[in-house]
Amino acid sequence: MAGVFTTNQVQAAPVQLNKITIKNGELQAIIVNSGNANAVTGNIGLEHAKIMQETTAKVLNIDASLVGVASTGIIGQILPIDKVVAGIHQLNIDGDTNGFAHAIMTTDTQEKSITIQSNIGGHLVTMSGVAKGSGMIHPNMATMLGFITTDVSVTSDLLQQALSDDVETSFNQITIDGDTSTNDMVLVMANGLAGNATITTASEDYDHFKTMLHTVTTALAIDIASDGEGATKLLSVTVNNGHSELDARMVAKKVVGSSLVKTAMFGKDPNWGRIIAAIGASDVTINPNIIDIALNDIPVMTAGAPVEFNQEVMSQSLEQKNIAIAINLHNGAAHGQAWGSDLTYEYVKINALYTT
Amino acid sequence: MAGVFTTNQVQAAPVQLNKITIKNGELQAIIVNSGNANAVTGNIGLEHAKIMQETTAKVLNIDASLVGVASTGIIGQILPIDKVVAGIHQLNIDGDTNGFAHAIMTTDTQEKSITIQSNIGGHLVTMSGVAKGSGMIHPNMATMLGFITTDVSVTSDLLQQALSDDVETSFNQITIDGDTSTNDMVLVMANGLAGNATITTASEDYDHFKTMLHTVTTALAIDIASDGEGATKLLSVTVNNGHSELDARMVAKKVVGSSLVKTAMFGKDPNWGRIIAAIGASDVTINPNIIDIALNDIPVMTAGAPVEFNQEVMSQSLEQKNIAIAINLHNGAAHGQAWGSDLTYEYVKINALYTT
Repeated sequence: MAGVFTTNQVQAAPVQLNKITIKNGELQAIIVNSGNANAVTGNIGLEHAKIMQETTAKVLNIDASLVGVASTGIIGQILPIDKVVAGIHQLNIDGDTNGFAHAIMTTDTQEKSITIQSNIGGHLVTMSGVAKGSGMIHPNMATMLGFITTDVSVTSDLLQQALSDDVETSFNQITIDGDTSTNDMVLVMANGLAGNATITTASEDYDHFKTMLHTVTTALAIDIASDGEGATKLLSVTVNNGHSELDARMVAKKVVGSSLVKTAMFGKDPNWGRIIAAIGASDVTINPNIIDIALNDIPVMTAGAPVEFNQEVMSQSLEQKNIAIAINLHNGAAHGQAWGSDLTYEYVKINALYTT
Repeated sequence: MAGVFTTNQVQAAPVQLNKITIKNGELQAIIVNSGNANAVTGNIGLEHAKIMQETTAKVLNIDASLVGVASTGIIGQILPIDKVVAGIHQLNIDGDTNGFAHAIMTTDTQEKSITIQSNIGGHLVTMSGVAKGSGMIHPNMATMLGFITTDVSVTSDLLQQALSDDVETSFNQITIDGDTSTNDMVLVMANGLAGNATITTASEDYDHFKTMLHTVTTALAIDIASDGEGATKLLSVTVNNGHSELDARMVAKKVVGSSLVKTAMFGKDPNWGRIIAAIGASDVTINPNIIDIALNDIPVMTAGAPVEFNQEVMSQSLEQKNIAIAINLHNGAAHGQAWGSDLTYEYVKINALYTT
């Protein structure tokens, strides 16, 4: 198995516990509660996470060291552990993943899951992922929970490397509100039942596996962005011809994270000045005089100067749910993407009334 | 005179022009238009800024090199220069500062100006400041315009040093939406008419002058934060016992810039979990287990653990316009502050409909 966790210095009890648990490289089950983050709850919080782990292990008749724990919800409230324990004893453990995808939702409006199949070394392999968003989303690690299972045979070390590399271009490239949660994690479990020759080193099979992983993580990441709190739009920012991939990703993330870009898109307003302002405010060195910007394939700025466009065609285009912002930095050959949602009345409403 | 400008790599034409103009260290007038930022407007934009400068110089019968230019408004639209030139010819130049404070407003709801007097070296000295906000406010330089005049006698070099130092704890510590404008600037003009012995070096008089400057800049900065787009609250974050002043300021600014903290305060919701999450997500190394947090002087977290508080008293307290968030890092002796506004329906409305 492999895992990545929030980079927030304030880490929820289940995050702290998992970091110890996964040291042996094996995991067979993950128990998740939603509604209470079990974060900033002191020593009692860590005790509660251990009770969740041990109770689940007992119910499944496996060792506690094989059980991961995740929580999502309000920070700073003591977990009602009696309810959680009672719930674990009532678990349906026949493998109903759809129930799982639904159960972990908080302010999510839609379940997020995907299953793909492919062929590695002549063996049919399957990979499934489930995730939840949908606020406090500014991954690093992604402010979200993601759980991926596969029957591919791969060493834990290589699985960890694949996951750590992958999140840089998938979950870590989504942002809803620029806030980084205390509870983020993505866990991947691979049981090897597909029967392929175990992937132990960088190879064609490893590349193939990484492509599968990227397909799953990117689909889940985009689902999360699309279902951001209060979202009416999915914003997809593509940066081409950057100096480096990191540069391209940073510019894309800065634009998709701008409150002013997000409100403009909610208002179906082609206010591209806010896009170039966000690019200029990023930590990447750019030359504004050579940059091109297009909104849904309609050029709005070329070589740093405004471009006339048909207002009516643009208006119709911005009615769509999916908004594509394309930026050409003309500063190299690297590519990067980021995804997010618009900033809406509903976002404010959801977050102004979250605990009350 | 002295000036500081936006750190955005995309700089509006008037910013580019002023950087050249102020090299001689003298300025006698500033011409400002609102509604159009004259940013990302190419060479024609720079021509327009020069025309504003030259026309104003002609009307005032002074050299063009003594005139500063500022613009604020929508990015990427060509300035209607004929209207601006006609307007300059109709200027009331009898020194009506209140008219000025009003004229430079965009989405500001209130004029922002302050005048203070003090005594330096036995001479009565006066300092006045005028500013406008109120969106795209995440200074560095502050996304705003600020103009300060004084009759203190001080060298340009020392004035520049005082201003550059000062903005780090005043204008650069406010944030409305995390976006950095292309047009920010603060200009200070000192004409020496107070008759004090010219301040030429670090001294008691210089310290006194810096205190005056800080009084003016901080008052204007807080006015801007308080009048942030759609704001119903002024959020004041104080960080005590940080490792360094920079650390304390960074933590304060991270908290006041968190969308989730801002929406919680709009909702009068004491959701302090979002405050500690924002602290943990800052680039400052902290130990969450020793941090205290209080909301309007009511402790909500002590040594990293929740504190019971009277919900009714808290609710009443959060009805106020002014919300004080106090954070004790217990990690040193340094202090820092930051100011901002809540995130409201009205913010979204203003920014979704800005160009249309």
